[in-house]
Amino acid sequence: MRAEANVAVSYSYFGGKSCFITALPDHEIGHAAARAVRQYGVDTSFIQFIDHGRLGLYFVETGANQRPGRVIYDRDHSTIFLLAADQYPFAEAFADAQALHVTGITPALSESAAAATLKAVKIARDKGMQVSCDLNFRAKLWRWRPGTAPKALARETMHRILPMVDLLIANESDAEDVLGLSAGTSQTADGKVDHAGYTSVAQAICERYPNIRRVAFTLRESISATHNNWSAMLYDAHSGNTFFAPWDQDGLNPYEIRQIVDRVGAGDSFGAGLLYAMYIAFPHDLAKAIGFATAASCLAHSVCGDFNLNTFAEVEQLRQGNASGRVQR
Amino acid sequence: MRAEANVAVSYSYFGGKSCFITALPDHEIGHAAARAVRQYGVDTSFIQFIDHGRLGLYFVETGANQRPGRVIYDRDHSTIFLLAADQYPFAEAFADAQALHVTGITPALSESAAAATLKAVKIARDKGMQVSCDLNFRAKLWRWRPGTAPKALARETMHRILPMVDLLIANESDAEDVLGLSAGTSQTADGKVDHAGYTSVAQAICERYPNIRRVAFTLRESISATHNNWSAMLYDAHSGNTFFAPWDQDGLNPYEIRQIVDRVGAGDSFGAGLLYAMYIAFPHDLAKAIGFATAASCLAHSVCGDFNLNTFAEVEQLRQGNASGRVQR
Amino acid sequence: MRAEANVAVSYSYFGGKSCFITALPDHEIGHAAARAVRQYGVDTSFIQFIDHGRLGLYFVETGANQRPGRVIYDRDHSTIFLLAADQYPFAEAFADAQALHVTGITPALSESAAAATLKAVKIARDKGMQVSCDLNFRAKLWRWRPGTAPKALARETMHRILPMVDLLIANESDAEDVLGLSAGTSQTADGKVDHAGYTSVAQAICERYPNIRRVAFTLRESISATHNNWSAMLYDAHSGNTFFAPWDQDGLNPYEIRQIVDRVGAGDSFGAGLLYAMYIAFPHDLAKAIGFATAASCLAHSVCGDFNLNTFAEVEQLRQGNASGRVQR
Amino acid sequence: MRAEANVAVSYSYFGGKSCFITALPDHEIGHAAARAVRQYGVDTSFIQFIDHGRLGLYFVETGANQRPGRVIYDRDHSTIFLLAADQYPFAEAFADAQALHVTGITPALSESAAAATLKAVKIARDKGMQVSCDLNFRAKLWRWRPGTAPKALARETMHRILPMVDLLIANESDAEDVLGLSAGTSQTADGKVDHAGYTSVAQAICERYPNIRRVAFTLRESISATHNNWSAMLYDAHSGNTFFAPWDQDGLNPYEIRQIVDRVGAGDSFGAGLLYAMYIAFPHDLAKAIGFATAASCLAHSVCGDFNLNTFAEVEQLRQGNASGRVQR
Amino acid sequence: MRAEANVAVSYSYFGGKSCFITALPDHEIGHAAARAVRQYGVDTSFIQFIDHGRLGLYFVETGANQRPGRVIYDRDHSTIFLLAADQYPFAEAFADAQALHVTGITPALSESAAAATLKAVKIARDKGMQVSCDLNFRAKLWRWRPGTAPKALARETMHRILPMVDLLIANESDAEDVLGLSAGTSQTADGKVDHAGYTSVAQAICERYPNIRRVAFTLRESISATHNNWSAMLYDAHSGNTFFAPWDQDGLNPYEIRQIVDRVGAGDSFGAGLLYAMYIAFPHDLAKAIGFATAASCLAHSVCGDFNLNTFAEVEQLRQGNASGRVQR
Amino acid sequence: MRAEANVAVSYSYFGGKSCFITALPDHEIGHAAARAVRQYGVDTSFIQFIDHGRLGLYFVETGANQRPGRVIYDRDHSTIFLLAADQYPFAEAFADAQALHVTGITPALSESAAAATLKAVKIARDKGMQVSCDLNFRAKLWRWRPGTAPKALARETMHRILPMVDLLIANESDAEDVLGLSAGTSQTADGKVDHAGYTSVAQAICERYPNIRRVAFTLRESISATHNNWSAMLYDAHSGNTFFAPWDQDGLNPYEIRQIVDRVGAGDSFGAGLLYAMYIAFPHDLAKAIGFATAASCLAHSVCGDFNLNTFAEVEQLRQGNASGRVQR
Repeated sequence: MRAEANVAVSYSYFGGKSCFITALPDHEIGHAAARAVRQYGVDTSFIQFIDHGRLGLYFVETGANQRPGRVIYDRDHSTIFLLAADQYPFAEAFADAQALHVTGITPALSESAAAATLKAVKIARDKGMQVSCDLNFRAKLWRWRPGTAPKALARETMHRILPMVDLLIANESDAEDVLGLSAGTSQTADGKVDHAGYTSVAQAICERYPNIRRVAFTLRESISATHNNWSAMLYDAHSGNTFFAPWDQDGLNPYEIRQIVDRVGAGDSFGAGLLYAMYIAFPHDLAKAIGFATAASCLAHSVCGDFNLNTFAEVEQLRQGNASGRVQR
Repeated sequence: MRAEANVAVSYSYFGGKSCFITALPDHEIGHAAARAVRQYGVDTSFIQFIDHGRLGLYFVETGANQRPGRVIYDRDHSTIFLLAADQYPFAEAFADAQALHVTGITPALSESAAAATLKAVKIARDKGMQVSCDLNFRAKLWRWRPGTAPKALARETMHRILPMVDLLIANESDAEDVLGLSAGTSQTADGKVDHAGYTSVAQAICERYPNIRRVAFTLRESISATHNNWSAMLYDAHSGNTFFAPWDQDGLNPYEIRQIVDRVGAGDSFGAGLLYAMYIAFPHDLAKAIGFATAASCLAHSVCGDFNLNTFAEVEQLRQGNASGRVQR
Repeated sequence: MRAEANVAVSYSYFGGKSCFITALPDHEIGHAAARAVRQYGVDTSFIQFIDHGRLGLYFVETGANQRPGRVIYDRDHSTIFLLAADQYPFAEAFADAQALHVTGITPALSESAAAATLKAVKIARDKGMQVSCDLNFRAKLWRWRPGTAPKALARETMHRILPMVDLLIANESDAEDVLGLSAGTSQTADGKVDHAGYTSVAQAICERYPNIRRVAFTLRESISATHNNWSAMLYDAHSGNTFFAPWDQDGLNPYEIRQIVDRVGAGDSFGAGLLYAMYIAFPHDLAKAIGFATAASCLAHSVCGDFNLNTFAEVEQLRQGNASGRVQR
Repeated sequence: MRAEANVAVSYSYFGGKSCFITALPDHEIGHAAARAVRQYGVDTSFIQFIDHGRLGLYFVETGANQRPGRVIYDRDHSTIFLLAADQYPFAEAFADAQALHVTGITPALSESAAAATLKAVKIARDKGMQVSCDLNFRAKLWRWRPGTAPKALARETMHRILPMVDLLIANESDAEDVLGLSAGTSQTADGKVDHAGYTSVAQAICERYPNIRRVAFTLRESISATHNNWSAMLYDAHSGNTFFAPWDQDGLNPYEIRQIVDRVGAGDSFGAGLLYAMYIAFPHDLAKAIGFATAASCLAHSVCGDFNLNTFAEVEQLRQGNASGRVQR
Repeated sequence: MRAEANVAVSYSYFGGKSCFITALPDHEIGHAAARAVRQYGVDTSFIQFIDHGRLGLYFVETGANQRPGRVIYDRDHSTIFLLAADQYPFAEAFADAQALHVTGITPALSESAAAATLKAVKIARDKGMQVSCDLNFRAKLWRWRPGTAPKALARETMHRILPMVDLLIANESDAEDVLGLSAGTSQTADGKVDHAGYTSVAQAICERYPNIRRVAFTLRESISATHNNWSAMLYDAHSGNTFFAPWDQDGLNPYEIRQIVDRVGAGDSFGAGLLYAMYIAFPHDLAKAIGFATAASCLAHSVCGDFNLNTFAEVEQLRQGNASGRVQR
Repeated sequence: MRAEANVAVSYSYFGGKSCFITALPDHEIGHAAARAVRQYGVDTSFIQFIDHGRLGLYFVETGANQRPGRVIYDRDHSTIFLLAADQYPFAEAFADAQALHVTGITPALSESAAAATLKAVKIARDKGMQVSCDLNFRAKLWRWRPGTAPKALARETMHRILPMVDLLIANESDAEDVLGLSAGTSQTADGKVDHAGYTSVAQAICERYPNIRRVAFTLRESISATHNNWSAMLYDAHSGNTFFAPWDQDGLNPYEIRQIVDRVGAGDSFGAGLLYAMYIAFPHDLAKAIGFATAASCLAHSVCGDFNLNTFAEVEQLRQGNASGRVQR
């Protein structure tokens, strides 16, 4: 549950209380992985250390300019891939919990990982916890049912999870890949993001899954591997309102990130920022919430490593408009 | 006197003769610090090695994009912080000297460091040396008098030093922070630097301190932590003229530095360039002098480390208009 | 024959069959150099290991922004510098070969290296092989005849080689430096590349050397050391047609490379791409050929090291228009 | 309380429950220091983050062969140096605690640090906790009372702490430096460790401080900076027995550590091993306890960094006699 | 077939002609692995690149002194683990081959890898090739048949392979682990290697498998993780002679390797040295052959990485007695 | 004059005043080389920066255990190789000098370098300066006269220099290689250094060159590449006395250096130590002088890099018997 590790760490780093439930191999490297998360204050007491299975790995080549980055996944037969749903202590781990966050990475690994994700969501739902889900579609994963294409397998699997979700997070292409819902041309004729299109997609999602009350989209424009523009939107089904960020007097004004340091984990940093904003910092102000999540994930592009080591104060400074990067001394 | 070390090294690297007067702890690391300066030809024979006090340190986190760099100072109780004014051999060190350069960093450290700076300036003034001063205001320093805010302490202290200064150097915010003189809105309505505003500030400074004959401002536009635009201006009180650089047929045309490598020390490289240009290379041509200083400090953003390791010829190449960065082979 | 090593490696990495003929010192480092090439499948069986002479070296300082990169050559008295023309096994090495590629780097080193290059070209020509030549003028080389300026020596030497060449490759300044043929102002009044000017130069070359049937130019705009725009053109003497790349519905639309990772070897990657496209991939489509070469060399700017480790598929993806750099996962 | 950090981490790594009480500056590096400890499971909830004072530092040069290692301390004016005794939440932190461990490093820093150490020991004593103390004399510290020599200051200060200590740990020279109790010649005429001498010193300590029920000595023979022989002894006042380790059929047979990787922290690893053995693993077997502590600290010499990252099982393997270092695969 | 890669590289580095047959994943890292071998001249044209399965990995922690090194294998589900015996082009690959070398690592991975090894050996045997086998027992592998212990599985599997082997290589414990044949106490009462014991084991092997004509043992004494003594023996069934190395006027005098740089791959370097000596360098002199193999593997302990980058001349220098390590300049 | 650079730096680091006379290429790397020396206080004002010729290089592979280190020289056509004797400002540089030190490295490079060395020695001799010479024979150099073997060329060349030398330094094999004077078996039957043999060689040298008043030998026993024993001797022709070091109550007791960090430059550190001891520290005590030189060069084996960064006090500590390497803190 790599993605969830990033979310748990960032949530804790902002000041929240998080717990990371996963399975790791019971050897030196597995324990080192747990420590990497624990140092940021994440509760690791429910991590299962098991004596078979591998540590899931992936290899990243960072891109630059016109040359794309690449990921080679090496997660098959990992401990998460292998562990059965009933071997996770969900009930015990959820004893005092208010919310559960899952992503589309875990059920993409194996049938048992999909079952475990589904089980976790069910238990959380039954306990009345808030459930958030980041679609996080990866075309190179979702290989666990021979004969079924990745997108089809993702759709079928997520379709069982989504009826129990309160908040859905997706990027600009996930909705089409997983749900078959397209914003049409993602950009209007003059190259701008098509606000109306994404709102329509969000509305369609909420109609299909009435339990989903809010939908958030990250909107990435890839100018090159090192230069992305970054913005996001949040749709609230109850009020029918849509909030875009970053928003200034001229409307949506995406963050230009011209020197990407490391973009792996940016989506997770958005999720962590959104959850912290909605649950803790700005529970009654959706505009601020999406602003915080967008600023958090913008800053994550400027920090090495998968964990978003930006504090609440640092994110707030950007959300409130200070993007000058001037040295503080 | 870290800042002055950078100035002394760059001045020597251009071909000038410089001497660095400071105090360092008498242990291996203190001596290594002296060697770092000496290798560039700076005279280190007046450095005081003392057996109490620490080596002043600071920790820098380099920023990127919207994420600012940060400095954590760790200079309290350093040898410079501690050494009393009368323990520096100023008189002996100034025997053959024509000029003294001080900055606002040293008097910001402690009361005794402020006294030592003042004493050095007095002795230099009495000997008829040229005295230059870089305001270099750091809000995280100037903590040495409990109950007095940093800006207030800086103003009071610098007010005793400035009446003995010939050339004042400041950045776009120092004048307001330390002298309370603002260029009004620093930019005109169309986003350009406000030439007239900075000229007014310079004039006001020269009226307040009639000994100050020239005022130089570096003008940094922070687009992001990795992208700054860079220009500067020099005001000559005698003629009333103002010179901006870089200047081409369209007027002021700041250097766009889109991939900052290391901006720490850029201000010092400007000072070194200006002093070398005014004292040695272009003593009778203020336009060239400010052009040289601006080009020198522009290039300093593209070199790792605090020392500006650009030669006179390299700076001249840029000052004369070659900014293409084409490989030389 | 460093340059040729880069070409041989990239050609082999695309899927072609290449052989690298050179001389190396018969010690550990010489053999390590051969291995560096052999790992990419280049035939190294004709490399001469000799017991006198050095390994040619050069030192590169990477530039940034306004600060140019610099090369210090240290290739004098190297094994290639020393070995006589008749000590290379050209006849044997060309037994099954269809094409020979030479560059202006080798004859620039020494009189015997020039003689060896000439001899290789003659033997290849006599065997009916295709001969390509990259002018690759380096002002810091061509020092081997005291009293003759580098440009003059290059012109004289290359003038003996060019009558046996089929395909000539040059960058935007080589033609003027080596052949005295200028595109006039290299840019038109509105700052665009002067298409007509380069076509005229290519025509003039083909008139002077009727054996040259095709001329390719790389066109680099140096905005700064880290930001170059990159395009190229190919002139076909037979048809009189000129092809520019990258070409879209608006005409020539150079690749903007805003974060150059390592530009050393970019010219060689263009040569390898052009040869592979013309000999193997697109032998009947000159527009695709120049498109492939330009895309290949564009990507080479985003990879560390002199070897262009971009595959055929990766180059094709860019040539066909995908420059977004989006992570593939 | 650097030393205590090492002890807390190793104790936790063995499987015990430890808490680290200290003061750190409330900035990024201070928090990173806390995380370094927290990742190993140490409870960091009582660490005080304060807004004045520095992070204590030290600089280590690793020695080799005849060249000794060197330490330059830079701990003056650190947060521990500054914080007053009544600002530590000892009472709250000791609520569920069974034991307290202190070392001679902390009281060596400043008068207030000495007072804080004394206060902690008093509170622990009053609560009936076990109190252990590692003398850990450092001649370069203990400078906080001008006019009093380090050894004298250490003696005076420790003399106030020792009457409340149950278990005393020292190295082969601490006892003489701090307590004035010498083992006479530390080696017998034939170059062996003088068992009887150390037993006498231990007895003398227990007579002087009747509360001290056990005394442990580490016995280091420095053949060179990279080659040390390592053994230890434990004296039990109640039984009058002395236990040496490592002990085999021939008696004391010190570990030969011929390729020291990093010996900083070895003393702390001994303390952690001894406490874990006496409190948890072998509470009724002093021979095993000293064996475990000696093996733990032996292995600490073969691991980079101050933390002893050897597990209980790894230490046991050595304690039980497997010192072959054979690869496990 | 990692182990075989090391053997193939070293054999080629000595000057022999080798080919490496294996399966690798058809992605960037798989191809990079092939290049790592190809650079040393090994024929890689029979490597199978397949589109499922992982690259086998392992993680090594280097030991020091009393702390052992550790290996965590991560080879399950790798391409070699997965590929079926009939998917390897053995017949084609053996067309011009005189000898085949296999090790116990490959059949330890999976049932299909065991089958592939067996098939390769059979084909080689049928063609009249020399077959050598290194037992290379790894207790952490051989997990592919649940319910059968590693040693039992190794015995059963190797028992099917060994009847087709000419030359058997093993280390001091393999014979007991895999074949159940023990040298009794491996050392005599005075701590010397028991020559007679190993000879008896070799004889027993040759009796059990009459096709095995020669047996070689490496004899490692682990003083510590960084200090091993190293020797070897070769038994010739035909003559009944046993040869030990290194051998001087006092008999067996093992190489003392007191500062091991990297011992992973030492066994493979022994195999490569023995095969090169027996097939190429000293086909009629078994004493020299074992001497060469022992010297080669001794030197492999002093080179970083798994490949033994020592040349024939370098090994010969040691075999002939120059072990002084004096700088050659 | 690389070797002399090491001597000059170490001499200055001890506290002496030294000047380094050489030629370097007038480019960035040449100037960086000068700075590397200048930082240690060596006078670099007589270094000639010339615009032809290379920077001499060499490549070192560090050995370990039985594997020897190797040096590949790449010094041909360097600036020192090229510069003529009359282009060095010897007269000016020697104005205030008391002593000159030369080594056999420089005249080994080229005929003009040999002439320059000879000229320097002559001028120094004429001025009455002390002249010291380290034979420093390198078999891979001395190639400048085709047809003359290295040893023969060295003998002939040094034979012209030695009649003007006061103090001769050599290692255990130089005397035989260059002067044809052998200590017979360098070790006695029981493996000890043959004291009498070396004394005889020294006497023979002083008889052949009566101007040589003192001869020093370093005596290295190479147990392995990482383990050397180290001692030295000094012969005084006037008194006929011989002094060995390190010397204790049992006589000569060489330093055992079991973990060599970097032995390149050890000979130079001996020279620097001997000169500093004889000229400055112990001018009237030859036993202390050779003791200091031997201790200095012993410690040089434990420091990375060619420069011996051990202070006078550090060397004295070892010379006086403290070889324990115990951490100083």
